[in-house]
Amino acid sequence: MIIIGEKINSTLKAVRPAIEKYDAAAIQSLAKKQADAGAAFIDVNAGMFHGTEPERVAWLVETVQAVTDKPFSIDSPSAEAVAAALKVNRNGQPLINSITDEKARFDAILPLALEYKAKLIALCMDDTGMPETADGRFAIAERLIAKLTGAGVPLSDIYIDPLVRPVSTGPRYGVAAIETIRRVKTEYPDAHIACGLSNVSFGLPARKLVNQAFLVAAMAAGMDGAILDPLDTKLMSLIWAAEALLGIDEYCLEYLDKFREGLIEV
Amino acid sequence: MIIIGEKINSTLKAVRPAIEKYDAAAIQSLAKKQADAGAAFIDVNAGMFHGTEPERVAWLVETVQAVTDKPFSIDSPSAEAVAAALKVNRNGQPLINSITDEKARFDAILPLALEYKAKLIALCMDDTGMPETADGRFAIAERLIAKLTGAGVPLSDIYIDPLVRPVSTGPRYGVAAIETIRRVKTEYPDAHIACGLSNVSFGLPARKLVNQAFLVAAMAAGMDGAILDPLDTKLMSLIWAAEALLGIDEYCLEYLDKFREGLIEV
Repeated sequence: MIIIGEKINSTLKAVRPAIEKYDAAAIQSLAKKQADAGAAFIDVNAGMFHGTEPERVAWLVETVQAVTDKPFSIDSPSAEAVAAALKVNRNGQPLINSITDEKARFDAILPLALEYKAKLIALCMDDTGMPETADGRFAIAERLIAKLTGAGVPLSDIYIDPLVRPVSTGPRYGVAAIETIRRVKTEYPDAHIACGLSNVSFGLPARKLVNQAFLVAAMAAGMDGAILDPLDTKLMSLIWAAEALLGIDEYCLEYLDKFREGLIEV
Repeated sequence: MIIIGEKINSTLKAVRPAIEKYDAAAIQSLAKKQADAGAAFIDVNAGMFHGTEPERVAWLVETVQAVTDKPFSIDSPSAEAVAAALKVNRNGQPLINSITDEKARFDAILPLALEYKAKLIALCMDDTGMPETADGRFAIAERLIAKLTGAGVPLSDIYIDPLVRPVSTGPRYGVAAIETIRRVKTEYPDAHIACGLSNVSFGLPARKLVNQAFLVAAMAAGMDGAILDPLDTKLMSLIWAAEALLGIDEYCLEYLDKFREGLIEV
């Protein structure tokens, strides 16, 4: 599983003050912990700071890369903020989070991806919104893949996010996301998935349980990447168990290692 | 989910003495707890008592039906034991656990199912053994469905068990079981699945976690019945979460009820 560590995010109430006060130690601690816990990318988001987002996300990149060499997931819909972060990045090939098939956003983000040879999270939405069905989402995924690879982005640098809607608002939304993942990985095995887990449970109690169920169901459908909290030991344990179950972790060797290291939480 | 409560089983060390000593109170307590926790069927197994199995399984049926009217899952490969249990059953349409496509077992069990109009768990094995692949298992499932429906068993009375092998012994065994389930439910939507959960994790530490992952992945593939411990509150919570996720529990109403009743364990 390609884990994108989601903790350094200005929408999280516990983290926002550290970004506001330029508290480097707090940010660096979150970065190191996530890297140690298995994050392949460190997501950085300063989107709650209107006006100062570009300078703050650039500060996050500089602050984090002082303590880890994990590549970044640069999390903003704003081309200006993404550009500011890409400019100071020294941690290898970054991931832009995200592009969509909305014309203005696509046209603003694509040149940055090409200039900096960045990977891209591509969200299944366009100027008409987020489709209700797996068919509608997959159609946008196909269009984005065609346009991005046509522009020179390698397929393996594209991470499709099916955009999960809460099952409390529509009983088919969980299945729609799972089926979108299955179709993308069946038709484009070299593309990746980068899916947020927590939206699915919005509005429900005991959300972690629904997120756990979604994680496993999506992995069984082929999901190979997710935006999540790598410090959630139960969630990480379930990832290792699912990889053993699905034969991704052949003969359960990684699962046994994690157990021996005391990292498996039942 | 159709839950077959697995607790009254002579292979369980904690339960065997109660069957040995004809401890009715202990057996009745296990039956009531499982019924209250949501079991649709109460499995009874006295297979560890060679020679006295028929009289013991009949005693289990009489003992359990004194305290609950849930139907039985009569768990034995022996036609003699199954017949003894069927003869004393008064709890409605029972489930015979199990028939296979082994000639001797098929020919011995089918007449009992027809005589007592019983449902049947059909295991994906024949005289050549258990196939390695989903293709091989599905082929046996198709053959069993054809033979049983040809003999007059309604399709909706057939519960296919894909027979899960431990992933510690073969990395494809988890996926083979999940794909068998998907194909059975796609080709025969009116047939049911009755799958054991715990075999998949044999030989691994922290087995419950792997069982949890298998449960969710199998439900996402269409599994609508399982043989499990309904007193495992975490496992039951995950079933309700998966039913909410998959839109089986429309708008999460049952999930919310279970949460209000304090039954959801994260």
